[in-house]
Amino acid sequence: MSGFLGALRERLGEPGLLVGGDLAAYENDWRKRYVGRALAVARPASTGEVATVMRLCHEHRVAVVPQGGNTGLVGGSTPDDSGRQLVLSLTRMKRIREIDVANASLTAEAGCVLADVQAAAAGAGMLFPLSLAAEGSCTLGGNLATNAGGTQVLRYGNARELCLGLEVVTATGEVWQGLSGLRKDNTGYDLRDLFIGSEGTLGIITAATMKLYPVPKEKLTALAACGKLHDTVALLGLARERAGDALTGFEVMNRASLALVARELPQLVQPLAPAEWTVLLELSDAESAEHARGVFEGLLEAAFERGAVTDAAIAQNLEQAKAFWHLRESIPLAQAQAGLNIKHDISLPVSAIPGFVAEMDTALSTYMPGIEVIDFGHLGDGNLHYNVQAPRGVAPAEFLAAHEAAINERVYDAVQRRGGSISAEHGIGRLKREELQQRKDPTALALMRSIKRALDPLDLLNPGRLV
Amino acid sequence: MSGFLGALRERLGEPGLLVGGDLAAYENDWRKRYVGRALAVARPASTGEVATVMRLCHEHRVAVVPQGGNTGLVGGSTPDDSGRQLVLSLTRMKRIREIDVANASLTAEAGCVLADVQAAAAGAGMLFPLSLAAEGSCTLGGNLATNAGGTQVLRYGNARELCLGLEVVTATGEVWQGLSGLRKDNTGYDLRDLFIGSEGTLGIITAATMKLYPVPKEKLTALAACGKLHDTVALLGLARERAGDALTGFEVMNRASLALVARELPQLVQPLAPAEWTVLLELSDAESAEHARGVFEGLLEAAFERGAVTDAAIAQNLEQAKAFWHLRESIPLAQAQAGLNIKHDISLPVSAIPGFVAEMDTALSTYMPGIEVIDFGHLGDGNLHYNVQAPRGVAPAEFLAAHEAAINERVYDAVQRRGGSISAEHGIGRLKREELQQRKDPTALALMRSIKRALDPLDLLNPGRLV
Repeated sequence: MSGFLGALRERLGEPGLLVGGDLAAYENDWRKRYVGRALAVARPASTGEVATVMRLCHEHRVAVVPQGGNTGLVGGSTPDDSGRQLVLSLTRMKRIREIDVANASLTAEAGCVLADVQAAAAGAGMLFPLSLAAEGSCTLGGNLATNAGGTQVLRYGNARELCLGLEVVTATGEVWQGLSGLRKDNTGYDLRDLFIGSEGTLGIITAATMKLYPVPKEKLTALAACGKLHDTVALLGLARERAGDALTGFEVMNRASLALVARELPQLVQPLAPAEWTVLLELSDAESAEHARGVFEGLLEAAFERGAVTDAAIAQNLEQAKAFWHLRESIPLAQAQAGLNIKHDISLPVSAIPGFVAEMDTALSTYMPGIEVIDFGHLGDGNLHYNVQAPRGVAPAEFLAAHEAAINERVYDAVQRRGGSISAEHGIGRLKREELQQRKDPTALALMRSIKRALDPLDLLNPGRLV
Repeated sequence: MSGFLGALRERLGEPGLLVGGDLAAYENDWRKRYVGRALAVARPASTGEVATVMRLCHEHRVAVVPQGGNTGLVGGSTPDDSGRQLVLSLTRMKRIREIDVANASLTAEAGCVLADVQAAAAGAGMLFPLSLAAEGSCTLGGNLATNAGGTQVLRYGNARELCLGLEVVTATGEVWQGLSGLRKDNTGYDLRDLFIGSEGTLGIITAATMKLYPVPKEKLTALAACGKLHDTVALLGLARERAGDALTGFEVMNRASLALVARELPQLVQPLAPAEWTVLLELSDAESAEHARGVFEGLLEAAFERGAVTDAAIAQNLEQAKAFWHLRESIPLAQAQAGLNIKHDISLPVSAIPGFVAEMDTALSTYMPGIEVIDFGHLGDGNLHYNVQAPRGVAPAEFLAAHEAAINERVYDAVQRRGGSISAEHGIGRLKREELQQRKDPTALALMRSIKRALDPLDLLNPGRLV
């Protein structure tokens, strides 16, 4: 390996290669679920340097683990414990290369922190809508490699839908120059979308051209109480019909999740009385605050009339709007304070969600009385975070050790029966790789494996992840 | 071959296989640019039968040309003249399998005619927005295989962006069950988008789940006259800012294209005086006709004030709105009446369009004085139909024979220099395959070839097309 590391040192210079010393920030995921040991950390500063790294890795048969902000949840961006995998950190590649306002697009390098991309767009008077909890440290490259979702998917799509073109370094160190500001281009296979969401197993994304949008004139949020999950689906249909694409957020929270917030974070004001389901709606209006308010009032009135909504509150100002969102975003924090739980990041056809939740809630309370389900998420995208907590008085760690496998099986079986997904937005990585082998369509798995072999025959790109 | 045909006959029955007789409708493209001869035409009625066909083709090493409505423009769906290729027509697979209103999705078989899919959605009170000139005969499978565009791309995207999931038969006759109503699913490589736009060279799309949208309350169109192409780009930015996603159409037409319509189709009323550029704008409003009119009036007023627009007319009723669209849609017809011309289906970053058109118009009139450019298209998507007509008095056929190659080279060179595409929405097929080899990024071509080899090692799927 010394020949390999020597060659790397020579090409990348002092700041470009970390060997020895404390590499923990690169070797372990932030939740410390995966603790690894790296051969070294390469920190190339340009696409050319990434290509050099890949050529050397290919020549010396060294496996590479691409890494951005290392904020993933599935063990996809840290090395195993063999000490033989090279971490390829993209964090020095953080240049915004171009902002094209007339074309509503922005080109940035993979290591740009998501919040910096948002800020660059805002500086040009435009909106880059990708937004998620880790935005202060996750990177654009990681967002694309994992096809990140977040809170604005309902209107703007996942990272995939926001991407126009990519620059990618292949397993052999070739550069695919696929940056593009085009909305339409039918000149061959869709390589862009193949690399997006491939979790670093097919190539290294080094830069991307992303879509920008006009900044909405006004953002308005409301909370609505619903008696049944069916009512939230009806409210969603009504909101889509009346607000069209101005509807940028539609989040649901079950009674248990807001009760948990009340217990763990009692300082947070909850504007509505507890209900079976509380919905957070967000409108992004191209016209004015008055117009947005008018749309909300008309919508909620119609929903009251149909009996879909029993109580509602429209935010009176920006501060209140933030407080509504904060309530929703505090659920994971409240969960963390309450101790370990069994997390599921699932998606279903929206129409299948009420049936799934009814069946599952019953099945789980039969399986173990007192079990608590913290159920919240992006209903508009069919994406639920369906998290299961130990009955009170049962130690969370013991509960997980004894029941996680059995509960996962029940949840994933029910998801699969309804045409759902066991990973809506977090990806597969190492965490769900075995599960995927069991549950994915066998023809799809075979196609994936043959694509992997075609693009990375030596299995050097993030081996042991995803496929 | 008789063993192969006998086996096919046995499995598909009488209506499932056409051998001999007049097969011209399957063998030639509708413009008669490609005249071929088929071994036979297989017409399977189910996914299972498609799989059977592919297994037999694989066993007997017979090449397959998948075909939908056979309305393509690039020679992608008809056999060569060897008499050894099997046409696989999907037109008997025309069942709408499911409409899920709560999930805003529809699942249909590949052979469904696009207009029938639109009608099925409308029947359920929803909108399926894909819309193009051939919608009365093109099929959903063909739309997906070629990633069709059309008139609503600005708001709803291409066929790709409208698709949630696919069912595909592979080269060896396996069925990938990838139908899905999910908006979020991060469980592996994006096979869906790999098959979409692959022009039948990687697999046979047999069914798809597509997105539906609420039907807009009101559609309103307007015409606006602009002095310069820059002004149309400014108007687009303003329209996006003020109308957000209610803006569903933004088409430009240069002076020559409307003059040609006036000459060839004098019965059509042209509401505005001739201008350098005329823009057709369409708003789809979720609220009311009054609201839409208000947005249009505010937008056009602002555009007048900035000097971007010199004249405008808002359609007063549905009939007038249709007449506005009809004017735009009559340009190709007027061109056909005027005789052959050199067609280009190009896309560019919107910001690069004015520079491209200025440079090209000058270059072409220098190349041959009197040459006429009929320039129109979907400016909002950066997609121009930049068609070149012979100077008056020069016979079109001779003009094409002598100058098509030289003019294509000039146009495509200028497109390439600005990061554009030589095929925005029509695809590659046989027509542009050589051109693509010359112009596409070499790493992209190498990646495409290795994917083709991985998924179709015997080159049985639409050989000689695209890759």
